[in-house]
Amino acid sequence: MALVPAWLRQYRAGWLAGDLTAGLIVTVMLIPQSLAYAMLAGLPPQVGLYASILPLVAYAALGSSMTLAVGPVAVASLMTASALQPLALAGSPEYAAMAVQLALISGVMLLAFGVLRLGFLAYFLSHPVISGFITGSAVLIAIGQLQYILGVRIVGAGVMEKLTGLVTSWQHANLPTVVTGVATLVFLLLARRAMAPLLERWGVPASMAGLLAKLAPMVAVVVATAAVAIGRLDQTAGIAVVGAVPQGLPALALVLPDADTLGLLWLPALLIALVGFVESVSVAQSLALQRQQRIVPNRELLGLGAANIASAVSGGYPVTGGFARSVVNFAAGAHTPLAGVVSAALMALVIAAFTGLFFHLPHAVLAATIIVAVTSLVDLDTLRRAWRYDRADALSLVGTALGVVVLGVEAGILAGVALSLGALVWRSSRPHMAVVGRVPGTEHFRNVLRHKVETVPGLLALRVDESLFFANAVVVEDRIGEQLQLDPGLHHVLLICSAVNQIDATALEVLTELERSLAARGIVFLLAEVKGPVMDRLRTTDLGRRLEGRVFLSVHEAFLFARRRHAQAS
Amino acid sequence: MALVPAWLRQYRAGWLAGDLTAGLIVTVMLIPQSLAYAMLAGLPPQVGLYASILPLVAYAALGSSMTLAVGPVAVASLMTASALQPLALAGSPEYAAMAVQLALISGVMLLAFGVLRLGFLAYFLSHPVISGFITGSAVLIAIGQLQYILGVRIVGAGVMEKLTGLVTSWQHANLPTVVTGVATLVFLLLARRAMAPLLERWGVPASMAGLLAKLAPMVAVVVATAAVAIGRLDQTAGIAVVGAVPQGLPALALVLPDADTLGLLWLPALLIALVGFVESVSVAQSLALQRQQRIVPNRELLGLGAANIASAVSGGYPVTGGFARSVVNFAAGAHTPLAGVVSAALMALVIAAFTGLFFHLPHAVLAATIIVAVTSLVDLDTLRRAWRYDRADALSLVGTALGVVVLGVEAGILAGVALSLGALVWRSSRPHMAVVGRVPGTEHFRNVLRHKVETVPGLLALRVDESLFFANAVVVEDRIGEQLQLDPGLHHVLLICSAVNQIDATALEVLTELERSLAARGIVFLLAEVKGPVMDRLRTTDLGRRLEGRVFLSVHEAFLFARRRHAQAS
Repeated sequence: MALVPAWLRQYRAGWLAGDLTAGLIVTVMLIPQSLAYAMLAGLPPQVGLYASILPLVAYAALGSSMTLAVGPVAVASLMTASALQPLALAGSPEYAAMAVQLALISGVMLLAFGVLRLGFLAYFLSHPVISGFITGSAVLIAIGQLQYILGVRIVGAGVMEKLTGLVTSWQHANLPTVVTGVATLVFLLLARRAMAPLLERWGVPASMAGLLAKLAPMVAVVVATAAVAIGRLDQTAGIAVVGAVPQGLPALALVLPDADTLGLLWLPALLIALVGFVESVSVAQSLALQRQQRIVPNRELLGLGAANIASAVSGGYPVTGGFARSVVNFAAGAHTPLAGVVSAALMALVIAAFTGLFFHLPHAVLAATIIVAVTSLVDLDTLRRAWRYDRADALSLVGTALGVVVLGVEAGILAGVALSLGALVWRSSRPHMAVVGRVPGTEHFRNVLRHKVETVPGLLALRVDESLFFANAVVVEDRIGEQLQLDPGLHHVLLICSAVNQIDATALEVLTELERSLAARGIVFLLAEVKGPVMDRLRTTDLGRRLEGRVFLSVHEAFLFARRRHAQAS
Repeated sequence: MALVPAWLRQYRAGWLAGDLTAGLIVTVMLIPQSLAYAMLAGLPPQVGLYASILPLVAYAALGSSMTLAVGPVAVASLMTASALQPLALAGSPEYAAMAVQLALISGVMLLAFGVLRLGFLAYFLSHPVISGFITGSAVLIAIGQLQYILGVRIVGAGVMEKLTGLVTSWQHANLPTVVTGVATLVFLLLARRAMAPLLERWGVPASMAGLLAKLAPMVAVVVATAAVAIGRLDQTAGIAVVGAVPQGLPALALVLPDADTLGLLWLPALLIALVGFVESVSVAQSLALQRQQRIVPNRELLGLGAANIASAVSGGYPVTGGFARSVVNFAAGAHTPLAGVVSAALMALVIAAFTGLFFHLPHAVLAATIIVAVTSLVDLDTLRRAWRYDRADALSLVGTALGVVVLGVEAGILAGVALSLGALVWRSSRPHMAVVGRVPGTEHFRNVLRHKVETVPGLLALRVDESLFFANAVVVEDRIGEQLQLDPGLHHVLLICSAVNQIDATALEVLTELERSLAARGIVFLLAEVKGPVMDRLRTTDLGRRLEGRVFLSVHEAFLFARRRHAQAS
């Protein structure tokens, strides 16, 4: 890998305007989001700002996407909160220190996966599981933010505690806070639905109108902060505000975790790494496809790993590629990761000089931006499609979402993975099987139940449409056993392996046992259409040796063999 | 299901002699085993005897195997000990009460699985996982019994605690106990290796010699008990003995578990049920095959479920089909489960009148019989075969065995299941793919790298030898992306699905996205040889509608289509 990234070596002057504009617009989105997501993660606001500087530069140096906008995101913030809340008090220095460790461990894991080229690990998370996970997280996040809209403080991390807390503390709600929060919610929802069409009607070009609509959260932040500051509403009306945010660039430091911390954080760090990687790659990929660029998953691992380590070094917390900001970055004309570097520079400027501006920013406004941001993550389309196409996948989606809401993010995603693996095994454990015969006058063989075909008396020709492995080998054996009971005169059993891509050790044992017991009853076991790679491995086994001369390239040859032997016998 | 089992309705007088003999011989094996396995499970000796009466009758009424010998077995006893040791003091009445609950919950689960026809669940345990589990259990059991051979008491359930306990308490060993234990070990090992050949040389028929060799444990028990009783060695030499075993048939009682107990025991009960079922069925199946009988897995679930409930009702603990006793039962001429009923009657007689005989039976002798019994469970053959045939399977075997020894039986088997599912997904996540072309003058298509074939300029014809699902869909997409970069002139991409048995929701989304992005670049996506069931589901989707007219029955038709379109374009 070159020290200077390819995009920088090949930089063209014509790209600069787009990169500068995109960098600026993303920064305007990033400021409220970084404050809000830090609050969601249980961290002081400046941590969100810290996580929005160096990680962007690190990703620009190593990542493969031209337009992915890296930084704090909602789901990783929720996962951070969920991992750390049992271990330390939210807002405390220990909590922030553990968030740094979480980013560091995640980052090292991502880098290691990249170096070891283990990007494929992320593909173990099926789309329904990811969709269910994100939907469940969005619900959990929204429920968690309602306390800020009400202006009450709820203790307890579980969803049931939060819900009962909301119900019981309803009467303690702070009215000015509720008004601020609800007004922001209404404004943001209207902005999302109606602002772009409205602007277009006023003559603003469609693409620009869409971008401006994305800046609504910044408008809400500015207006609300100004109103609170002018009216001193934090003191007169009891509206909770962000307060003093330490000014100045983050101090750089690398603190390695001790064994205890590693033991506590490895699993959440791994899940944050994997989920963040999957989200990033899918956003990056869909943007890259539109410009006929390519994403290299193993390069993404390096880029995201470096970004998280950079976040840890500069006092941040886990980051990844964000959906909304990446889309805006792309639409605003970013050509290269220089746009991210521009954002990073602007964020550095903000934190070096302007954090005083956030003093009067109400928590309720941040909570409203989070709630509106995550409602777009609730993904009922995937559920609807999965339900129509594949019930098992739909159930693993719903199971994951419910798991996340009821059991929490870690248990939820693990339950989801278990469900999707279970669905996979379950589907393959009920293979489609067909007894076949020859279409007269041809060398084609078809299901005897569906076609008028010729059979050889005493020959059972069974096609299995599935790889043979531990969960279905016995099912195939049982089916052959059934057929033997139906037709005690069978003397040849032919297994057609045209759809058998693999035979695992369990299936090999079952077939070996089957061949032996058939042989003991005087029945000849035949194979046909065994694929090259399967045959290569079969040849080295006992079964392969016993079957020598009885494995046929085509069903037709096996058919002729059985007919010849039948004729000789009778 | 009829009230009177089929074997009883069709009973023939000629079977009686065999059933009576087998029942008697199995009883002679069962007496020392039931006492020994109760000790292994941490239970008083009479519990082993209780578990050897009613369960045999219940299985005879409902099971489908003619020769399976049900009762206490080594692995289920270890699992019982491992489940209960954290919850109660071994040997205490609470411990015995929880063992009853474990049998009850296991039994109800097995019955429920049988009624719901969920026998296939057991097939999720691959052979390497089961083999690794049993090997690991055997090692764990043997280590646990060494304390009785030394005549010392070791506190602590973990394997490391047991090993360090053995090392540190070496000097407190009771010499007469060590002599008794080692002598029994040597006798039993010699009996297994040399007794049958010796008897044969003395003119005993081979089958009878083999059976007599199996009775060696009873011989050891009788000789050692007599020696201890005559020499009063329990008092004079400090040899630990079984002591007073309550005489009389067990009282029948059904105690339902409360919610707490259910919460603590459901997972171990489930694992005991599944492992016991898998072991039973594999023993029963291999015996049934030799006589051309069939095992009905769902009937086995009912039989084993009833046996465990019967065990719980009569003060026993989890039971299942034992390997050694079943083989002896079969070899001794058992024709029907009447042999089991005979054993049960004899066991009832023993417990009603003769438990006094066990008073002077040394623990060291029981431990020696357990150690010798479990050494035959260590299964290096399967490991050797799996290593040669499939490394991933071999690794899941070793991982399960190590997991059982190091982490314990429950964590070990769960780790094994995770490993085997991981191996399954990993294998399928690296599908064999081939770019194919036409063998000149034919309609056959072969790998362009291996054969001299014709291709159509601008057509990429890719065959994927695997079902498409979440773990490999992106790999296929990446491969197509690579080919597009290698040959920017491509205008048709043909995916050959002859080996695609399933397309899950994730793969469907990936293909949909791929088709869209290809279309955006003016590239036509084609499918060929899509299997009937896959096509039926594809038709209902967006992708199916978009692909109308571009799904071909044969590769040849797709090839002609692309060539025709290419000719029109140029």
